[in-house]
Amino acid sequence: MATRLANIDLINNCDAFPDPERDPVGHAKFTQGFYTFIWNDDEGPFPIGYLPLTVIDALDKTPASIKGQVDVDHANRTVTLFHEPKTEEERTQLAARLTAYWRANKTFLILKGWRNELWPVYGRHGELLLSMERAAMGLFGTVRYGVHMNAFVRRNDGDSKYDLRIWVPKRSATKSNYPGMLDNTVAGGLMTNEDPFECIIREADEEASLPEEVMRKHTKEVGTVTYISVTDKRAGGEPGFIYPECQWVYDLELPSDLDVVPTPKDGEVESFSLRTVEEIQEQLAQGLWKPNCALVMVDFFLRHGIITPENEPHYEELRRRAHRYISFPGPHQKYHPQQETSPQ
Amino acid sequence: MATRLANIDLINNCDAFPDPERDPVGHAKFTQGFYTFIWNDDEGPFPIGYLPLTVIDALDKTPASIKGQVDVDHANRTVTLFHEPKTEEERTQLAARLTAYWRANKTFLILKGWRNELWPVYGRHGELLLSMERAAMGLFGTVRYGVHMNAFVRRNDGDSKYDLRIWVPKRSATKSNYPGMLDNTVAGGLMTNEDPFECIIREADEEASLPEEVMRKHTKEVGTVTYISVTDKRAGGEPGFIYPECQWVYDLELPSDLDVVPTPKDGEVESFSLRTVEEIQEQLAQGLWKPNCALVMVDFFLRHGIITPENEPHYEELRRRAHRYISFPGPHQKYHPQQETSPQ
Repeated sequence: MATRLANIDLINNCDAFPDPERDPVGHAKFTQGFYTFIWNDDEGPFPIGYLPLTVIDALDKTPASIKGQVDVDHANRTVTLFHEPKTEEERTQLAARLTAYWRANKTFLILKGWRNELWPVYGRHGELLLSMERAAMGLFGTVRYGVHMNAFVRRNDGDSKYDLRIWVPKRSATKSNYPGMLDNTVAGGLMTNEDPFECIIREADEEASLPEEVMRKHTKEVGTVTYISVTDKRAGGEPGFIYPECQWVYDLELPSDLDVVPTPKDGEVESFSLRTVEEIQEQLAQGLWKPNCALVMVDFFLRHGIITPENEPHYEELRRRAHRYISFPGPHQKYHPQQETSPQ
Repeated sequence: MATRLANIDLINNCDAFPDPERDPVGHAKFTQGFYTFIWNDDEGPFPIGYLPLTVIDALDKTPASIKGQVDVDHANRTVTLFHEPKTEEERTQLAARLTAYWRANKTFLILKGWRNELWPVYGRHGELLLSMERAAMGLFGTVRYGVHMNAFVRRNDGDSKYDLRIWVPKRSATKSNYPGMLDNTVAGGLMTNEDPFECIIREADEEASLPEEVMRKHTKEVGTVTYISVTDKRAGGEPGFIYPECQWVYDLELPSDLDVVPTPKDGEVESFSLRTVEEIQEQLAQGLWKPNCALVMVDFFLRHGIITPENEPHYEELRRRAHRYISFPGPHQKYHPQQETSPQ
């Protein structure tokens, strides 16, 4: 019988990149497999990602006409690239040319999952440096952004300690990553210039047939989760890419007088089930949940008083790790980057 | 007119020690004023505190018969001390001798606040290394532990957005630190071998005349807050000591049918007032709260849905900073250090 996963295992399975302060030895050892992706601006150099050695090697073998100017500093284990063009648009074109070349040459398995979706890469002050094909982000280890929502109802048929049932989708068996695993009710990735709330509304329609007016009226922003994952083969492609991720998180409490039931639409989801907290805890312990969705679920249980200091020995660590500090720049550094002063 | 403090200012005023990951330059600059307090055990050396240069200087001028063996490594800016005795009891005696010598010689202003209270210093696996006079902890920069509780009632007389009023004490004008400032309903420091919950029950009686049976029935553990303060002169004594602190936090919702009113008893508190959320927000903005109690209040507002992603641009940072990772060992590293497995 497989080991049962505790909540802290669920976090460790998602936030797997060693912390430089908690585990300096583990961090130093792990990062030996990577070069730091450096961006230079008027104020100097700063890190924005991690490139695995396989990508350093591939860059070395790629013609300059494709990759543009690449400066690799083997002593300091840093790389600068995409700097030659002066505009965001030209840098986006350069990244597209390079990743398309690798895709055509089958350099990386992960590029088989090509999506034709452009995702953002941010600079020191949250400005857009360039956009890049979603499937290629892992090659550069820059921050990825997305949205996750749990829809739930207040109901108890006497079979649960909690007055709460959550809609749990099973991912389609044909998905390229984590097929057949359990997920948050609605989730998706944030394309360049996409607003998180508008994104979750769009995904809620596409994945779960949730009406826009219900979403706008009842969805509540509840902050973000942040973590740094290391991919395994279930993510599609080679294992071992670094995914620093920030997910905007939403709660949707469906009022009992509303007859709204999430229903698959675009084929991403096989089916939805309304589950008790205990049923979800059992699924999590059995490892049936996609790792980052399990972390979002742990955050949900923390916020709703289901995981408490009394029943969870790792309470503080769970709370801290689900909101890990990511040192790279971007909108995750401040919840509403456009606002500069507190309303208080 | 004085600047009004935003929530993030309240956190910055308490958690003032620069973060090595967020602000490596600031951290390096700040720690130039300190030597790292190193403990050696069978597994090797590890840090447990920070000694300011004034303490290094005082150690240098203290006879060996008083201080025991002290090894200062000026190249690596580290100190080992209290290692000579083999037992916790003997190390506690050595620390008492050293700090009493400095107190008698008026070496440090902070020792004028001598309390005759022994506080713990922990080793790598949470074992007690020694105990030390409370007022002397800042000289060594080891982790300090305490308990804070907010008592509140569910009531709204139509003058607040929130169905919640909180009991706010004003500290006595004669207190050695932060006299006259506002505080959490009940708070106190944890002596060696003291259980946090038993400590808050004792303090609730001594400071606020709250009956033990009410405390045991209605007090809820809600986790810890952790931060690293840098003292100013309001803390008593010289400014610039590092206080890494962990406070166990409790909520006491007083049922409306209970006629329980916090009342001063031991002279620590001048008076208690029942305040609306808006009144407390105004007091916080005016800088009337003791800094670490202000941080506990921000954590309270986060947990009770008063500070939200919609009304607070620094929502994620507040949440993270109120639960800062402290790299030194001790029971703050796990909420219930005695438990090794999750109940799930």
